Amino acid sequence: MYRTHTCGELNASHIGREVTLAGWVQTIRKVSNSLSFVDLRDRYGITQLLIGEGLAAQLSNESLGREYVVQATGKVIERTNKNPQLATGDIEIEVSRYTILNKAATPPFTIQDDTDGGDDLRMKFRYLDLRRQAVRKNLELRYAVNRSARNYLHENHFMDIETPFLIKSTPEGARDFVVPSRMNGGQFYALPQSPQTFKQLLMVSGYDRYYQIVKCFRDEDLRADRQPEFTQIDCEMSFVEQEDILQMFEGLVKRIFKDVKGIDYAEKVERMTWNDAMLQYGNDKPDIRFGMKLANLKTIFEGQSGDAQARVLFEAGGFKVFNDAETVLAISVPGCSDYTRKQTDELTEWVKRPQIGMNGLVFIKCNTDGSYKSSVDKFFSEEQLKQLAVACGAQTGDLILLLAGREERTRKAASELRLYMGERLGLRKKDDFKLLWVLDFPLFEYAEEENRWVARHHPFTSPKPDQIATMIGNDPVIKDAANYLSHPYANIKANAYDMVLNGNEIGGGSIRIFQRELQEKMFAALGMSPEEALHKFGFLLGAFEYGAPPHGGIAFGFDRLCSILGGSESIRDFIAFPKNNSGRDVMLDAPSAIDEKQLEELSIKLRS
Amino acid sequence: MYRTHTCGELNASHIGREVTLAGWVQTIRKVSNSLSFVDLRDRYGITQLLIGEGLAAQLSNESLGREYVVQATGKVIERTNKNPQLATGDIEIEVSRYTILNKAATPPFTIQDDTDGGDDLRMKFRYLDLRRQAVRKNLELRYAVNRSARNYLHENHFMDIETPFLIKSTPEGARDFVVPSRMNGGQFYALPQSPQTFKQLLMVSGYDRYYQIVKCFRDEDLRADRQPEFTQIDCEMSFVEQEDILQMFEGLVKRIFKDVKGIDYAEKVERMTWNDAMLQYGNDKPDIRFGMKLANLKTIFEGQSGDAQARVLFEAGGFKVFNDAETVLAISVPGCSDYTRKQTDELTEWVKRPQIGMNGLVFIKCNTDGSYKSSVDKFFSEEQLKQLAVACGAQTGDLILLLAGREERTRKAASELRLYMGERLGLRKKDDFKLLWVLDFPLFEYAEEENRWVARHHPFTSPKPDQIATMIGNDPVIKDAANYLSHPYANIKANAYDMVLNGNEIGGGSIRIFQRELQEKMFAALGMSPEEALHKFGFLLGAFEYGAPPHGGIAFGFDRLCSILGGSESIRDFIAFPKNNSGRDVMLDAPSAIDEKQLEELSIKLRS
Repeated sequence: MYRTHTCGELNASHIGREVTLAGWVQTIRKVSNSLSFVDLRDRYGITQLLIGEGLAAQLSNESLGREYVVQATGKVIERTNKNPQLATGDIEIEVSRYTILNKAATPPFTIQDDTDGGDDLRMKFRYLDLRRQAVRKNLELRYAVNRSARNYLHENHFMDIETPFLIKSTPEGARDFVVPSRMNGGQFYALPQSPQTFKQLLMVSGYDRYYQIVKCFRDEDLRADRQPEFTQIDCEMSFVEQEDILQMFEGLVKRIFKDVKGIDYAEKVERMTWNDAMLQYGNDKPDIRFGMKLANLKTIFEGQSGDAQARVLFEAGGFKVFNDAETVLAISVPGCSDYTRKQTDELTEWVKRPQIGMNGLVFIKCNTDGSYKSSVDKFFSEEQLKQLAVACGAQTGDLILLLAGREERTRKAASELRLYMGERLGLRKKDDFKLLWVLDFPLFEYAEEENRWVARHHPFTSPKPDQIATMIGNDPVIKDAANYLSHPYANIKANAYDMVLNGNEIGGGSIRIFQRELQEKMFAALGMSPEEALHKFGFLLGAFEYGAPPHGGIAFGFDRLCSILGGSESIRDFIAFPKNNSGRDVMLDAPSAIDEKQLEELSIKLRS
Repeated sequence: MYRTHTCGELNASHIGREVTLAGWVQTIRKVSNSLSFVDLRDRYGITQLLIGEGLAAQLSNESLGREYVVQATGKVIERTNKNPQLATGDIEIEVSRYTILNKAATPPFTIQDDTDGGDDLRMKFRYLDLRRQAVRKNLELRYAVNRSARNYLHENHFMDIETPFLIKSTPEGARDFVVPSRMNGGQFYALPQSPQTFKQLLMVSGYDRYYQIVKCFRDEDLRADRQPEFTQIDCEMSFVEQEDILQMFEGLVKRIFKDVKGIDYAEKVERMTWNDAMLQYGNDKPDIRFGMKLANLKTIFEGQSGDAQARVLFEAGGFKVFNDAETVLAISVPGCSDYTRKQTDELTEWVKRPQIGMNGLVFIKCNTDGSYKSSVDKFFSEEQLKQLAVACGAQTGDLILLLAGREERTRKAASELRLYMGERLGLRKKDDFKLLWVLDFPLFEYAEEENRWVARHHPFTSPKPDQIATMIGNDPVIKDAANYLSHPYANIKANAYDMVLNGNEIGGGSIRIFQRELQEKMFAALGMSPEEALHKFGFLLGAFEYGAPPHGGIAFGFDRLCSILGGSESIRDFIAFPKNNSGRDVMLDAPSAIDEKQLEELSIKLRS
């Protein structure tokens, strides 16, 4: 061993001991010709070395540079200037001899938290970027989450069972990465998008509780912050209903909070139906760290609130934009009634950006003096504005922001605007964690081009228990495309659940289908012929014949979970060797061309 | 939850409680029309259900079959016939109601330890095979090894850091599996044969101690018991020398012995040079659970033992087979001097099989009455036989087996014969575990076709510290192919180590090169041009410029380790979803053809 101790462990109790350390030169401070201080760094910390007169000659011959790898032996002595910021700040090493183990060229960027290196440069020299404390802390957090999850799952009788990586291509949803087989020329393996069918087979095999922290692969066009390979905490349990899964896995996340962040998440994890999430927050993964729920004025005035008088008022305004709109959504922003013209103009510009795509923004100020002012004053009297404000649930001091237009776009815009205002007002605190279960998703979405159903979660998700009969008892084919909403399948809810943390989906799962007949109905609903279903999933249909237990599970996006816990927007910061947005590893320069000989052995050639 | 308890946890302390269990019907015993016993099974155990008169009608309508999935509620009662073999053997459940959760077709083979299912059938229905207790125990052992290894490594400050799966193809040694990139048409990723370069980069990045239990991929022609995807316990440490690695990782294996098998492996782990292993055991992974070391008669008589007189005798015999042979190797098999003619003939047939390929077998019986008998009595007097026996180190009662022929074939045959005799004599006990470090491997092998060096371990292994200068100071090119053995590189030893358990290499590693100059010499020795080295490994050479610490590591073959601990010959038994010898998953029917559309998106086409 090149060292007796690490750079993070020496303290006053070691004074007088002779020790040997090894690490990287963080800084060198030459005080005089006969006295230099060197901060020596390793993963565990920093220790100050004192290089005195006896080594002055060596130091002038073999001078030290930043990031040099050095081994130093000497006596632990008490520091005159103690540094209480540093675990080793009470001591320093009076070096009696040192050896340069390896030199270092000047790094292309500074190895500091606030580095001067741009993204591309840091990715090319990722091995240097990984030296920065900020990145190291992220990977340490990742390991802590990994360890915590494993401990919790172990204590709850889950078994880590490895599933294969070279599997069968069954494209459904995302594209598979495929691997040409040399031994079976013309045939391909696929890399798993998830171990879904394997974990279900393990339940059929009686393994009862399975987990894996496992790489998965999706060949998608990479939006910002997606990776072609990503990691899941993948879990499955037998003999459970939805409630059992919710309990078990909010327990997992609470344990991670405790182990990794020291947070006792004592409160009950909130639950919300998918319907409520869409209505109140405009999306299916609401950030509930703050309020500002959406008020749907059309819905309100169309009688759900029963406020017939308000409806009259709303229409009486004669504001065509509102009256013609499919949807009018309002957000009451607390304490912002005093926004200046400049500020409200800014917000208007914000919603008009192409990413949001609205035509404009209407606002009503609920002034603290009791007056109401609006950007549409010419259409509404102050009394009418007040009544609108009441209908929106606004309080004195609120700034009501109103968006009107087509249903889907307006909903998305309102959702984004709400998050933006939350951010602006500092309501989305990084160290505030709020969990939420979103429940009762629709089982199907409608695919217009193909006039068929698409599984919202995946084809193995069970309907709610009381809707199994509906699914089995009806023909999945949509005969009347125009009225697909009146097909019995349109209202089937999935026995599925998403876990949302601070506005991010961190996990999702479902109770699975475990009856062959129901699974066949599902495949038929997705437009698969019985032959295709058998070809792709015959092993699963077969397995359901031999005593499949009721089961369900969940998968957490491990990269995303780590990034949220680490207070970052980017999952790349939490992956040791990430790829860029073109799916390239710029450090390795991969992917790359391969030899003609390799292609030949694989029975493939390039298209020109 | 479909149950209040598992099938493995109820005992006398629960008597009188109402419980609900769920599981699979293992057996049904109908005692009378109004009394049946059902053994209900889950992962945790088996519990006996008593189905009495009250349910007789239901039972006759909804009869139960083997492997049916059943939920049953009833009272825990004391059993009249207790079963001490069973954890739950003191109790049974007086069932008050039951529900069939899922029916089961008759399995294609019996779900029992001694199943009637052939290999192919069990692989096709792997989800049923996995139900057998024998297989489940294997996967439980695998998880226990996983857990034990993680705990030990965690306690020793190793961090689990995930490395990428979509990397760059740098074929060296085995073939890479490749993955066509859709977004970078005409280019390919490779799946990692090991995370070797990444773990070294992590050391350069200062992570100090890394580990991962990780899938690796090799596209090789599969010999029996090789898998295209396999799992490694992969580890790397900084600032270490060979001795540190040996200590740390014999500690790991001892910990696994303790945690998984309850074995205190207190003895010192033996160490042997590669040279001694080859001489004394004929291979580099000797099974040291038993003796019977090889005696090399040519070497002995050529003076290493200094027994000049014996040499004369040996040659005096005038036995041409011995005198002409490059090598004569002897194994003294204890207690077998009374082998019959039939038995020695059997052994002769055994060595003549094509897999062994010897022309014959000579034996000398060291009889307990002090006499010596041999199959070559006409060449050697009894006194000469005795002297040969002494030279072989044989004892009274031994049967000496002698093989003669070309060096390499004879060595391999002797090694196999030794193992065969060990097996025959019951000296290779499955529950006897003997660890061994094999050290001081040659750094290079000679590749005759290309007249260049090949890295015996891999191109990142450092030579022994005192041979670094030899490597840097000499030109790796072999100018005189006929005398390659006199090239200075021929005698360089690797700073590498293999861990051997009961005759199987379970792990191997090395101290790594961490100096750019030395790494460049290594690549040159392997016949890589500087350009090729830069293209393939530029990132690693670059990393060595910026302060690379001395480091080393090891990788354990996780599948193999588990199979040895489980007392099995086959790693397939310890993999949940293994592939067959053609690399096929017969359950999934993978690999398989993919759509033309997929090929097109990937910019490739099939060769016809």
